Amino acid sequence: MKTLRGGITAPLGFLAGGVAAGIKKRGLPDLALVVSERPGPIAGLFTRNQLPAAPVLLDRRHLRYRRGRAVIVNSGNANACTGSRGLADAEEMARLVARGLHARPRTVFVGSTGVIGQPLPMSRIRRGLPTLLQRLRRSGGRDAARAIMTTDRRIKEVAVQDRIAGHLVTVGGMAKGAGMIHPDMATMLAYLSTDAAIAQPALQQSLRHAVNRSFNCISVDGDTSTNDTVLCLANGMAGNPTLRAGSPGFAAFRRLLDYACHSLAMQVCRDGEGVTKVVQVLVVGARSSAHARRAATVVATSCLVKTALFGEDGNWGRIMAAIGRAGIGLNPKRIGLSFDGVPIVKGGTGLGPAAERRLAQIVRRREFTITVNLGQGRARAQLWTTDLSYDYVRINASYRS
Amino acid sequence: MKTLRGGITAPLGFLAGGVAAGIKKRGLPDLALVVSERPGPIAGLFTRNQLPAAPVLLDRRHLRYRRGRAVIVNSGNANACTGSRGLADAEEMARLVARGLHARPRTVFVGSTGVIGQPLPMSRIRRGLPTLLQRLRRSGGRDAARAIMTTDRRIKEVAVQDRIAGHLVTVGGMAKGAGMIHPDMATMLAYLSTDAAIAQPALQQSLRHAVNRSFNCISVDGDTSTNDTVLCLANGMAGNPTLRAGSPGFAAFRRLLDYACHSLAMQVCRDGEGVTKVVQVLVVGARSSAHARRAATVVATSCLVKTALFGEDGNWGRIMAAIGRAGIGLNPKRIGLSFDGVPIVKGGTGLGPAAERRLAQIVRRREFTITVNLGQGRARAQLWTTDLSYDYVRINASYRS
Repeated sequence: MKTLRGGITAPLGFLAGGVAAGIKKRGLPDLALVVSERPGPIAGLFTRNQLPAAPVLLDRRHLRYRRGRAVIVNSGNANACTGSRGLADAEEMARLVARGLHARPRTVFVGSTGVIGQPLPMSRIRRGLPTLLQRLRRSGGRDAARAIMTTDRRIKEVAVQDRIAGHLVTVGGMAKGAGMIHPDMATMLAYLSTDAAIAQPALQQSLRHAVNRSFNCISVDGDTSTNDTVLCLANGMAGNPTLRAGSPGFAAFRRLLDYACHSLAMQVCRDGEGVTKVVQVLVVGARSSAHARRAATVVATSCLVKTALFGEDGNWGRIMAAIGRAGIGLNPKRIGLSFDGVPIVKGGTGLGPAAERRLAQIVRRREFTITVNLGQGRARAQLWTTDLSYDYVRINASYRS
Repeated sequence: MKTLRGGITAPLGFLAGGVAAGIKKRGLPDLALVVSERPGPIAGLFTRNQLPAAPVLLDRRHLRYRRGRAVIVNSGNANACTGSRGLADAEEMARLVARGLHARPRTVFVGSTGVIGQPLPMSRIRRGLPTLLQRLRRSGGRDAARAIMTTDRRIKEVAVQDRIAGHLVTVGGMAKGAGMIHPDMATMLAYLSTDAAIAQPALQQSLRHAVNRSFNCISVDGDTSTNDTVLCLANGMAGNPTLRAGSPGFAAFRRLLDYACHSLAMQVCRDGEGVTKVVQVLVVGARSSAHARRAATVVATSCLVKTALFGEDGNWGRIMAAIGRAGIGLNPKRIGLSFDGVPIVKGGTGLGPAAERRLAQIVRRREFTITVNLGQGRARAQLWTTDLSYDYVRINASYRS
């Protein structure tokens, strides 16, 4: 497996571009388009938020036909809580792109991200689209990735390649997300492309596998959005024999997609709003996976744990207090905590000044792992969380102004 | 009903005091004692955290005998995650006080609040106790209330009085709590006193009623602690006929206790770490109380909602997004939002620029109400939440240093 440049346009047959259509203030790029030269199978996963945005409603409907050709995404406006007008606007976006590409509207998918509750400025999108269609190019992945950013400080791209059944197969991708990041589904948009020939059910299964181990394992602020979407479009141009679940090369393809999703998820975490640290929370020794997941989530979302991480304060008592309210049965005398492998708590109590001194060093690292051993069983779960800083508050207190 | 000065020593027969025993740095008061001249029935409620601190374990055991005489509380150290040594220390605190008062150890209750995971400096507590016993006085409520503070900026006291069956009955109280505030149980210590003559079961029932409507309805940061405790000690010195559930005067007594708990809970909220606003989240039109409570909790604990409150940004989309992830079935077209009675969202969509302008005024208020109407039924729930500010991060990033 080898990483490449090129992001979402690294696989064969993908074009992309981005323009400033005037949805965002100050002339920043805010409209992105990704197109495959050929239609192909598409897989998707969406937010479980009960108030999904209009583009999510539209994409779910289009995904029933399982074929994709293009994805149009605007930033600066989420087109959420916009009622029937919002849905009509999303439909129009798909229709306009389909017309420009001579494609069927149902093969065009739509994404929106930004402020909730305001109608899309459709006249600006209509004006921007012709330019965007003209700017589509083989090296346009970066422009598209830039145009889907909101509070993101960094462009998030990935491309990775491997030989499958004698053919070079590439997976590319881009993502946006910095706030409203939490499992199910890590509150963001991520788009993946591949030139693999693959049956749609195998693609959907691979995507679910990759997302469960990546985007569904990161938490910045515990909030999930109305717009979370992950799509993966495959055009078959690598020429490999069509992959199906269990066929030769399927595992290799899954590794590519897993890698791409994990890389994008970590980029989202590291670029989280105000984030100075990314910390892995690993819970082991749980009675069940659900218990492990629950304990990891409570630790990963505790404001007190996250502010202590920001302050580089090895206040492990806050982790204990968080585990204690996870709503799972505990035996205090069996609980252990370690930081990057250094034991800090054993049998539910602290290991004293020497351990605290080592802890004080570890919490200064930019990335480290907190391992919680519940001492009850063999199940485990891991999440990545971030610290909670002044900048998180600054960014979110003034998001709309 | 009339409010008084005097806090926890306002009822007849209560003495209190506070000293600086050296548990906290910089010579701040950190040891408080409240004593009734006579033992009497005591009621208590404790954290549901599965890793309760040593004093909680001790108090639960003492509460089985249902009689109380005194409460000793230290701040600066939570005596949590301290194993068997922690329990022995809590037992010694009760024993030392009992010896000083010629009381039974099981009538002495212990509270601790502060850093988790460090052993109590028992030698300092032993040295401080004789002075504390000497300083007990009728007007010592304020000294005790000061000595239980940690990051609190303000002393939290209440006293309220009414005539019950021809006798003046008084309820007094004190509380500490500014961080780790969340329902079940609002992560704090609260101690109440009354001179009412009341049977223990009636006292326990009244306390549960009052706590469910006060301390269990406030959230500052979503974290519940290992030490939450509410105790109410009654000494019967008002001379009223003994109150029992349903007896004349019982409802009047409950009103006193409800008032005292609500007042202390609101003081805790207003003094929450870094708090600049206290906002009531009222969910109506839910299918069940559990649904209403769940929706209110998700809104009240969302970092994005809370930072928007701090920024005085009427970003109602974040409230919608929070409701959407509450895990309850929703019909987007029936959801309404109003702020202090002004409709902002109807049928799931925003009401436009005029409503937004009125909203911009309301979010500048120090206290206001957000009403969420789910449009599904008749159940409701309310919580009080606070904003999330730079100061919350500052206080919690450096708590131990």
